[in-house]
Amino acid sequence: MQQDVPDGAGLGLVEPQYFHFDELRLESGAVLRPVTLCYETYGTLNHGNSNAILITHAFSGDAHAAGYHRGDRKPGWWDNMIGPGKAFDTNKYFVICSNVIGGCAGSTGPSSINPATGKRYALDFPLVSIADMVAAQQKLICHLGIEKLLCVAGGSMGGMQVLQWIKSFPNMLHAAIPMATCARHSPQQIAFNEVGRQAVMADLNWNHGDYYDKEPPARGLSVARMVGHITYMSDRSMAEKFGRKMKEKGDGTKFTPDFEVEGYLKYRGDSFVARFDANSYLYITKAMDLFDLAGEQPLHEVFRGIDVRLLVLSFKSDWLYPSYQSLEIVKACKFAGLECSYVEVESTWGHDAFLLETERSEKLIRHFLNSEMQNLVREKAGAE
Amino acid sequence: MQQDVPDGAGLGLVEPQYFHFDELRLESGAVLRPVTLCYETYGTLNHGNSNAILITHAFSGDAHAAGYHRGDRKPGWWDNMIGPGKAFDTNKYFVICSNVIGGCAGSTGPSSINPATGKRYALDFPLVSIADMVAAQQKLICHLGIEKLLCVAGGSMGGMQVLQWIKSFPNMLHAAIPMATCARHSPQQIAFNEVGRQAVMADLNWNHGDYYDKEPPARGLSVARMVGHITYMSDRSMAEKFGRKMKEKGDGTKFTPDFEVEGYLKYRGDSFVARFDANSYLYITKAMDLFDLAGEQPLHEVFRGIDVRLLVLSFKSDWLYPSYQSLEIVKACKFAGLECSYVEVESTWGHDAFLLETERSEKLIRHFLNSEMQNLVREKAGAE
Repeated sequence: MQQDVPDGAGLGLVEPQYFHFDELRLESGAVLRPVTLCYETYGTLNHGNSNAILITHAFSGDAHAAGYHRGDRKPGWWDNMIGPGKAFDTNKYFVICSNVIGGCAGSTGPSSINPATGKRYALDFPLVSIADMVAAQQKLICHLGIEKLLCVAGGSMGGMQVLQWIKSFPNMLHAAIPMATCARHSPQQIAFNEVGRQAVMADLNWNHGDYYDKEPPARGLSVARMVGHITYMSDRSMAEKFGRKMKEKGDGTKFTPDFEVEGYLKYRGDSFVARFDANSYLYITKAMDLFDLAGEQPLHEVFRGIDVRLLVLSFKSDWLYPSYQSLEIVKACKFAGLECSYVEVESTWGHDAFLLETERSEKLIRHFLNSEMQNLVREKAGAE
Repeated sequence: MQQDVPDGAGLGLVEPQYFHFDELRLESGAVLRPVTLCYETYGTLNHGNSNAILITHAFSGDAHAAGYHRGDRKPGWWDNMIGPGKAFDTNKYFVICSNVIGGCAGSTGPSSINPATGKRYALDFPLVSIADMVAAQQKLICHLGIEKLLCVAGGSMGGMQVLQWIKSFPNMLHAAIPMATCARHSPQQIAFNEVGRQAVMADLNWNHGDYYDKEPPARGLSVARMVGHITYMSDRSMAEKFGRKMKEKGDGTKFTPDFEVEGYLKYRGDSFVARFDANSYLYITKAMDLFDLAGEQPLHEVFRGIDVRLLVLSFKSDWLYPSYQSLEIVKACKFAGLECSYVEVESTWGHDAFLLETERSEKLIRHFLNSEMQNLVREKAGAE
């Protein structure tokens, strides 16, 4: 079975699954119907259904967090963290990764067929929020027969979903690991997303979102992704990776990339276009920008009276989601009396660190989950 | 005469001047002919021609550094620093600001007429370097009858020209003030410029640079400028200026700006299009990226045996031209035995600080120039 899977030590072959449900009432009041959520699971649910961990993904992520799809040469996006013996140890835990609504990786989004018209939604798709994404995931978790998750964990936009889980369904999780994230975007974070949106919409092929039967706005989306990639790295990691190394210039044309860093960004931008829908880019970045966990109230009010233990992780060179934003979460938790550990992980990788700095994060997450499981066992023994 | 000039205390009305010369041999070997340089002067050249200061401008700057053009409501871009009693005191100094070649503000650039074809150059314009810009300025300085400048001063790309002046014409300046700049771009700086170029070139109206009789690539250029503006500010200055304040949304359309920061960037992007040529954007950002003062040799070799005094200024929240880049210049100067003062100016304005943090910079520059003038007088007295 597994001869086409490069890494025999990991999860091996995995397959996406789909959860269909009738409707989702959105924060805006609009109703989305029907709804499909794409998800994957790794490991086995135990008898008490008490070992389930939900992984939430970042902006351009998907449900394929670990293992290999048949024929793939690269594993899921967090394979270095999820698997037998890894941080999210599938020998112990039942790990679920759910795609978000609004996306383009198997769940209902702007490129899905609108049953009212028989055509793709495009901009008729309603605005969705981080809370809507989490509400859809909650239906999935109930569908899987899980009353209470051991933990919800994720980085970047995944971290926003973690925080929203605590707010929306505080009795459905024991623990939470928000990584490299924030309780709401700063104007700088909004600005970078807005530039990406403007780049997409500046492409004449975008055509107000109506491009599904025509040329997609590939150039604009590629530029948007290039901006994103700069913000995911750090000054230092770019210096170490590229320096001022020059490319071989084949054609001698003016303004083709001279430097390796230019070629790399162009390549990443262009390859993103093949896997991502431009309208989903708009919807999901907008959901991130409008996310505001506490709104008008002080942040600690969100956490008041809630019994969830947190491990908050930030990364030293991450200037897109700087540590002070994680510290705001930690302070609010402490103020509200929640048990909350915080580590600023050493790293030069910038925001990408939550995906790459696995050696350091792995230990922290493993110990945290171990002690959560022990807590659960102890609580159960105490109750019996 | 001055009733239409808002600020009576400053320079009042000023006018651009034009210096035409036959040809400029470029670093690439190409010859540009004929060449026009747009420049402005403020104050009066003294009898010994010893009080001249050259101001070099940043990427999107121009020769109009101070005073008012007839009918203008806003003064030149460094008016808070140049004028009677200001840092560059026009009661004492003869201040020259020269536009760069390759630009679009009165000097020869890609939107100029190519005498060989009678049409605008567009991409037939040769690549120009920072050294070429400086070589053109040197001809202007000679034309003005100045053998040795008291000082060359400028920020950002202006600072690169300052450094290049030291390298190219070390005997033509006594002192230099490179501000918020570097001896060469890091891959992160290159990456931000490249994203801007890709945004311009992604606009179908760019048409490989051939758009002068058609619609210009306004959308792409606007996106490029938006990216730039984010990098000119700081996380903190954006938070202080905009926070998460929302805009009044008139039309209720999806993906029009929700936040004030979005509206501001869009406005700045769109208004840039009215004054800047997209091809100049490509040529000038490329000149910045290819600038490498020392090339293969150690930076201090550039400064060896040179008798120029430097005041190097960087700004604390400037993450686009971070202080470590200024410190590299300072170290190299010290290593080569040059007299070099360095101040990291407190500021929350980000890279824009070199334009805005005038109260702090003004004193430093005033004292530096005063002591330079006293040195000159002393040297002269010693020689007599």
